[in-house]
Amino acid sequence: MKLDQLKVAICQINSTVGDLSGNSRKIIEYYLKSVEDYSPDMVVFPECALSGYPPEDLLLKSGFMNALAKSLDSVRKEVGRTLAVVGTPMMKEGRRFNSAVGIQNGKILWAYSKRILPNYGVFDEKRYFTPGSDLGLFRVQGVPAGISICEDIWEDDMRLSPCMAQAKRGAKILINISASPFHSGKFGVRYDLLKRRVAAVKTPVIYANCVGGQDELVYDGRSMAMDAKGQLRVLASSFEEDIRIVHIDLANGQVKSIWREKAALPLGVPEIHQALVLGTRDYVNKNRFKSALVGLSGGVDSALVAALAAEAIGRDRVIGVTLPSKFSSEETRGDAEKLARNLGIQFLKIPIQKINRAFLDELAPFLKGRKPDVTEENLQPRIRATILMALSNRYGHLVLTTGNKSEIAAGYCTLYGDTAGGFAMLKDASKGMVYSLARYVNKMAGRPVIPASTLSRAPTAELKFRQKDQDTLPPYPVLDKILDGYVEEDLGYDDLIRKGFDKETVKKVIRMVDSSEYKRRQSPPGIKISPKAFGRDRRMPVTNLFSDSP
Amino acid sequence: MKLDQLKVAICQINSTVGDLSGNSRKIIEYYLKSVEDYSPDMVVFPECALSGYPPEDLLLKSGFMNALAKSLDSVRKEVGRTLAVVGTPMMKEGRRFNSAVGIQNGKILWAYSKRILPNYGVFDEKRYFTPGSDLGLFRVQGVPAGISICEDIWEDDMRLSPCMAQAKRGAKILINISASPFHSGKFGVRYDLLKRRVAAVKTPVIYANCVGGQDELVYDGRSMAMDAKGQLRVLASSFEEDIRIVHIDLANGQVKSIWREKAALPLGVPEIHQALVLGTRDYVNKNRFKSALVGLSGGVDSALVAALAAEAIGRDRVIGVTLPSKFSSEETRGDAEKLARNLGIQFLKIPIQKINRAFLDELAPFLKGRKPDVTEENLQPRIRATILMALSNRYGHLVLTTGNKSEIAAGYCTLYGDTAGGFAMLKDASKGMVYSLARYVNKMAGRPVIPASTLSRAPTAELKFRQKDQDTLPPYPVLDKILDGYVEEDLGYDDLIRKGFDKETVKKVIRMVDSSEYKRRQSPPGIKISPKAFGRDRRMPVTNLFSDSP
Repeated sequence: MKLDQLKVAICQINSTVGDLSGNSRKIIEYYLKSVEDYSPDMVVFPECALSGYPPEDLLLKSGFMNALAKSLDSVRKEVGRTLAVVGTPMMKEGRRFNSAVGIQNGKILWAYSKRILPNYGVFDEKRYFTPGSDLGLFRVQGVPAGISICEDIWEDDMRLSPCMAQAKRGAKILINISASPFHSGKFGVRYDLLKRRVAAVKTPVIYANCVGGQDELVYDGRSMAMDAKGQLRVLASSFEEDIRIVHIDLANGQVKSIWREKAALPLGVPEIHQALVLGTRDYVNKNRFKSALVGLSGGVDSALVAALAAEAIGRDRVIGVTLPSKFSSEETRGDAEKLARNLGIQFLKIPIQKINRAFLDELAPFLKGRKPDVTEENLQPRIRATILMALSNRYGHLVLTTGNKSEIAAGYCTLYGDTAGGFAMLKDASKGMVYSLARYVNKMAGRPVIPASTLSRAPTAELKFRQKDQDTLPPYPVLDKILDGYVEEDLGYDDLIRKGFDKETVKKVIRMVDSSEYKRRQSPPGIKISPKAFGRDRRMPVTNLFSDSP
Repeated sequence: MKLDQLKVAICQINSTVGDLSGNSRKIIEYYLKSVEDYSPDMVVFPECALSGYPPEDLLLKSGFMNALAKSLDSVRKEVGRTLAVVGTPMMKEGRRFNSAVGIQNGKILWAYSKRILPNYGVFDEKRYFTPGSDLGLFRVQGVPAGISICEDIWEDDMRLSPCMAQAKRGAKILINISASPFHSGKFGVRYDLLKRRVAAVKTPVIYANCVGGQDELVYDGRSMAMDAKGQLRVLASSFEEDIRIVHIDLANGQVKSIWREKAALPLGVPEIHQALVLGTRDYVNKNRFKSALVGLSGGVDSALVAALAAEAIGRDRVIGVTLPSKFSSEETRGDAEKLARNLGIQFLKIPIQKINRAFLDELAPFLKGRKPDVTEENLQPRIRATILMALSNRYGHLVLTTGNKSEIAAGYCTLYGDTAGGFAMLKDASKGMVYSLARYVNKMAGRPVIPASTLSRAPTAELKFRQKDQDTLPPYPVLDKILDGYVEEDLGYDDLIRKGFDKETVKKVIRMVDSSEYKRRQSPPGIKISPKAFGRDRRMPVTNLFSDSP
């Protein structure tokens, strides 16, 4: 029997790396629910749905690969006459593959292995996997279809494209399963890609992405189905699990969604907001923290972290701690307290002045004879870190750091001080983006949850009297633009001068970024929201005498 | 003219990543010296001698690639009628290659690009480079020779081996240039490899390795030349720059060293000792630190770090700081002071008791109602870290951390406390190895530089009264063996039980290692001395629910 229409369920699920029993239970649950509710011809799960992505060096452990095989078996037993396609790493003849497995009636019918392995940016797949050589053609209800995995569909050279090969061999529909990490603007990149691909292959394409946070990465979901003319017909939720049922008319390549409209599509600040909320929620919950601790300075970074944390895990699980020193103004002290009240989170106040005095007394014989400098300034964030970590040790809170990408890039932060904590929510958000997000939070709340004075005050670390960030750093709008070029686009001094930036400022920024690599090497993971984040995305040597600046 | 003998100079140099002007000057200097002193037919430099290895994401910067091309040009101009072979990354048609360049009479004659790119362990070459497709055959004084780069010669499948292809096409001698990182036992692995390769290709092989420290890696040098019968005839120094002149009789494939005997070959504890000394010296000097600071507890780890640091950079550049608390015994206090005196390093004493009291007072309202636990214990190393970092901020010292691999594996360390510092010398040395190294230091000195009482006392963190490491950890000899299996060999629970370890102990160790990944993620770089080090060698997700243990 050959059908003239197909119904495909996309299960956009949130797997957890290493949680093989949890992931397999979730796959079974979504499979059964899809079958029961919608009677599809096929149920599709994302890339590495069984393992979570990326499993990194877990893949090198035979215990992990064996456990994966067992979990796949537990899924296999539950699959009935509706075909399931499940992404999982697999061993074949002593080699590891990144595979999609077709299962029906309790049997594994086929396994396709990813042919094009990404090994750039955050990806290291050539470290783990052997490229597959299968064509990836299979039949569903007698209809020829093509399966590919993430990077496979990104290949623009049609002589090498697994999708094109499948279309040429008669595939009536192409399925791509992905674990495609979010960055701001990524949806447009994927949409354009699918348009290009459909224009070449002239068949409907189903793109099934995963969702959820995993250390530095967050997956935005947004699975799609495009008809043979390149019209986007199905769009799944952003940053949420979802099931979408795609109806394909095989005669004319038309595609429609069953029962549900296209999901809302947040872009720009709203999508970054959602990315940070989901990334934080999943880091906290998947690592089984009950609560999170934020040091509140009265400034915008910590205010935003506290607000987003409250949104991510609930206000009853967030504790704000203010740790004032003699340099803390009445205004910032007040703002910290006001913020906590606005959010309805628990608020603690632990002054650091006496501890600071004890350090200065003990250090006096060793520091004397010089004017106070960064030495005395850095004591304060390190005392604060020690206090936050003490509360974390006693009560098991996760400490959220509050530094933003502009500060972290410039090294305008104290190692073991404000950089100390388990998760750096704003690590990839520039200072400009922090302000945009803060205003967005207030707009969504319909009231100044983050106090207006916090937003209007000139940024200050308050580590000495009358200190302003801009005493040390170029104005943030300038700094952010130079950093965009230097960090995200890998531009050099000459490129930046050509773009019109001031020579001395560019020199200074490049020197600041280059000389603070050692701080970033020891910083906690944070959520990638830009095309190039610090961390696994940008891997710089610490020992490095190269300077791309005169 | 075709010669019946060849003279090849191996320049085993210590390049610095990114120091393009320094590296090119060094290459020119070694070239000119080799030519003047020994009149060789060819002068050979290691892989990536011009850039240093690994340059990591510097390679993605066009500014870096352009600067490399300019530096190569400055080398080119200095090369006269003696052929120079220089390793460097290169751009060709918009792609990056890991190349060896043949230069003569101020002209680039050829460039061979590495064909087999390693992408495992500490290597990420597929992230950066396109594999070459050249045969790698060239002529020196009319004699056909083959050039290959590092991994090229490791390929054991003779159908894929660039070296075998060169031999088949008539190469009379094979040159391999490498940047092969050290681990204990690596020399034997390389020696066996060259034996295997010569047995297949039946020509003399020259293996030119680099030397020096680069973040987590240290290169041991030990360049070699093997004759056509597989006898090692030339062996360059370990952990030192060197020039070796290899004389090859082309008629019979005999090889001899000119003027100098084979270098001494330290193995086992002595080679690890040298690796740690060189790795530390290069980290300090290449990063331009004038001095290093070590917190001295009276225990064996900090004693060894101080002793090796003094050896690496000179005792006048090392400062020992003891930071006693009320839990510090008279014995450990005395040992710290005795050690500093024995080493002749500057010694500071900064008690932490009053600062600790200030923290406890301020925290009292938030910690009350519970028995003291790890919260109070961890305050102490964090206070010590803050003091050491204050001295570092004021005087520019590098803080050396003192944790060993056993502690770091088990998470028996305080994040932002004893893990805080710029360089973790013993990060890859197990507790057992620390004792072996300490005894070796004393043996070499001919006196107990590290006090006998430090070596005989049961290990203690002294964070509470009568505390012993073994209250928390399995005995170190057992722990170290389980860690060897679990970390270095990726064995699982079942494998370890089969090896005869106690079930509960294995479970406990696996749990400790798995649950402390977040601490290691934020730890400073340290020197790889084992086949698998923490850091870029072992890349584990933090968010990970897999356990290879029941």
